[in-house]
Amino acid sequence: MAIPKSVVFDSGKLRILDQTLLPGTEVYLECTSVEQVVRAISNLSVRGAPAIGIAAAYGLTLGLEHSTADPLGLQQEIRDRAARLKATRPTAVNLCWAVDRVLVVAERFYDQNADTNLSEEELYGARLARALRQAADSIFDEDRKACRLIGENGSHLIRQHPRVLTHCNAGSLAVSELGTALAPIYLAHQQGVPVHVYVDETRPLLQGSRLTAFELGRQGVDCTLISDNMAAHVMSLGQVDLVIVGADRVAANGDTANKIGTLNLAIVCDHFSIPFYVACPCSTIDLGTATGSRIEIEERAPEEVRQVLGRPSAPVDVAVFNPAFDVTPAALITGLITEKGIIKGPNADKLRLFDTSCDPRSS
Amino acid sequence: MAIPKSVVFDSGKLRILDQTLLPGTEVYLECTSVEQVVRAISNLSVRGAPAIGIAAAYGLTLGLEHSTADPLGLQQEIRDRAARLKATRPTAVNLCWAVDRVLVVAERFYDQNADTNLSEEELYGARLARALRQAADSIFDEDRKACRLIGENGSHLIRQHPRVLTHCNAGSLAVSELGTALAPIYLAHQQGVPVHVYVDETRPLLQGSRLTAFELGRQGVDCTLISDNMAAHVMSLGQVDLVIVGADRVAANGDTANKIGTLNLAIVCDHFSIPFYVACPCSTIDLGTATGSRIEIEERAPEEVRQVLGRPSAPVDVAVFNPAFDVTPAALITGLITEKGIIKGPNADKLRLFDTSCDPRSS
Repeated sequence: MAIPKSVVFDSGKLRILDQTLLPGTEVYLECTSVEQVVRAISNLSVRGAPAIGIAAAYGLTLGLEHSTADPLGLQQEIRDRAARLKATRPTAVNLCWAVDRVLVVAERFYDQNADTNLSEEELYGARLARALRQAADSIFDEDRKACRLIGENGSHLIRQHPRVLTHCNAGSLAVSELGTALAPIYLAHQQGVPVHVYVDETRPLLQGSRLTAFELGRQGVDCTLISDNMAAHVMSLGQVDLVIVGADRVAANGDTANKIGTLNLAIVCDHFSIPFYVACPCSTIDLGTATGSRIEIEERAPEEVRQVLGRPSAPVDVAVFNPAFDVTPAALITGLITEKGIIKGPNADKLRLFDTSCDPRSS
Repeated sequence: MAIPKSVVFDSGKLRILDQTLLPGTEVYLECTSVEQVVRAISNLSVRGAPAIGIAAAYGLTLGLEHSTADPLGLQQEIRDRAARLKATRPTAVNLCWAVDRVLVVAERFYDQNADTNLSEEELYGARLARALRQAADSIFDEDRKACRLIGENGSHLIRQHPRVLTHCNAGSLAVSELGTALAPIYLAHQQGVPVHVYVDETRPLLQGSRLTAFELGRQGVDCTLISDNMAAHVMSLGQVDLVIVGADRVAANGDTANKIGTLNLAIVCDHFSIPFYVACPCSTIDLGTATGSRIEIEERAPEEVRQVLGRPSAPVDVAVFNPAFDVTPAALITGLITEKGIIKGPNADKLRLFDTSCDPRSS
């Protein structure tokens, strides 16, 4: 059974799978305004660094074709939208990257259409929408290709190490399709490799149990759900050959922000000498952020920890610390699996080679 | 506000606090039969290694005073009860230890009362109940004293390292009163030390958020709740000086079984050079088990991981691994805090000195 797509854009309408309701219910949010997209990103209906970038890119364009604003008004509208979308979640770089990439196209459009006369005004919005949607489509298509290449580049690791553990969800639901961390697993599975995946449930929002277990099940990949704190025990029993996770931002020196709990896992892998890989498209590498300590870590509402699935799990007034991400130092990362190949022992010298691919102005 | 007692025995009645309903509801189960105690231990209404030992010790005696069975019948009844109670949970040694300790008193009673004539039969059960309850009372009282001494022996560590992290619940609710891991914290707090405790929520059954946060709050100890996978991040921020956890069984070489997730924490402490202490009464040290690999690890129902607080959190048919405990190697343990003092760098030579205190036949 197929995994539902996280983000679908068709005939001017953006449909976002409401992942907060998975695995029980598959419902798409029909978004016709940027406000709806902002809300969908903020409340994690769409999540996963590449997927929120894609959703935001399309979000920039919604309804533009019907706008009666003049060119300057539309220019301001796009800037406002970009700011609101970027402000939703600070940690994943792909959001900012995707929005900036569409903005570059918008700027080019304004330049090329500076002499539009007033009688053409009613067409301006439609033409702008078309130009920006092409940019969003490119982001989507490139992500699809990148995921496929990440899968191909990483699948030999799964052949060598078929007992994998993963954290959070870096699968099809986190991207255009296929996934980052799960892409090598899916391809190896299709090639007949007897993959087995331990899935960390990933508190507080349970993306592992709700999303990863769901999509692995859909694809028929053998998996076992555990709570996050069981990973070390499972490793001590010799049940894990390899860990792969996704990433929300890779700093220029290779330090990597990913879902809270990733640092825990990387340290435990180091202890047991288990290879620890991060899979991500190059758009997740942020050469503008020197080290992990510069990455802003989003803190979310205390209720996410005081409650589970809406039910109180703690005294109502207990203080909570709820960082959504942590930073794993490059020294604990065996390699980055990207669409351009595997970067073993990522560091500033190696990542500098990825400069152009990560600059939105280069495309 | 006082913390409710986990186990109360009074006038022949055993009252067990139903900890599965905390922190929302404080209800005591009134137990008048061993079956009720078996159920209360199995479903974790009472949990914590010392507390289940205490509950089981009293459970052995329930209703004996009304029994009309003959001496041989009563002897068989006690043996049956002991076997049923011991079978409830395999990992915590205190359960077995407490039951065996009451059994020794029972055997002594049978020997001393072998010539009871038939006309005295109706009194036999009442006299046996009294003898066994004295043994259970002793276990309770010794646990109270041990916890107080653990607190005194460990409180200087809290003065030196006031920012503590703990896992699961090794507080008042896990013992007679005061706690093991939390005892040094409570005493330091009473002495005016500005203690702060990070509380791991402790999936799957949330003993940290439901119980530890609850009792620390009751005692006015400053605490912050986190999900288990946040511990490494909190440590990376320099927010933790010391970790203390309880124990369910310490093997003869110092390897320690405790709530699942403890091994994870110990490894992360090692990475960050943070002292990692285990607090337990000597009754938790099991010289009959050579190393941690010999400790039987209880596996619990998959629903505990597929659901949270009764709500589905994963595909209903996903495979689950649900070990209730893990084993931390002695090499990762800075010290054991016991009622007899702190055993730094626990190993077989040091633990051998604790021989007599842990043999039920010696008391």
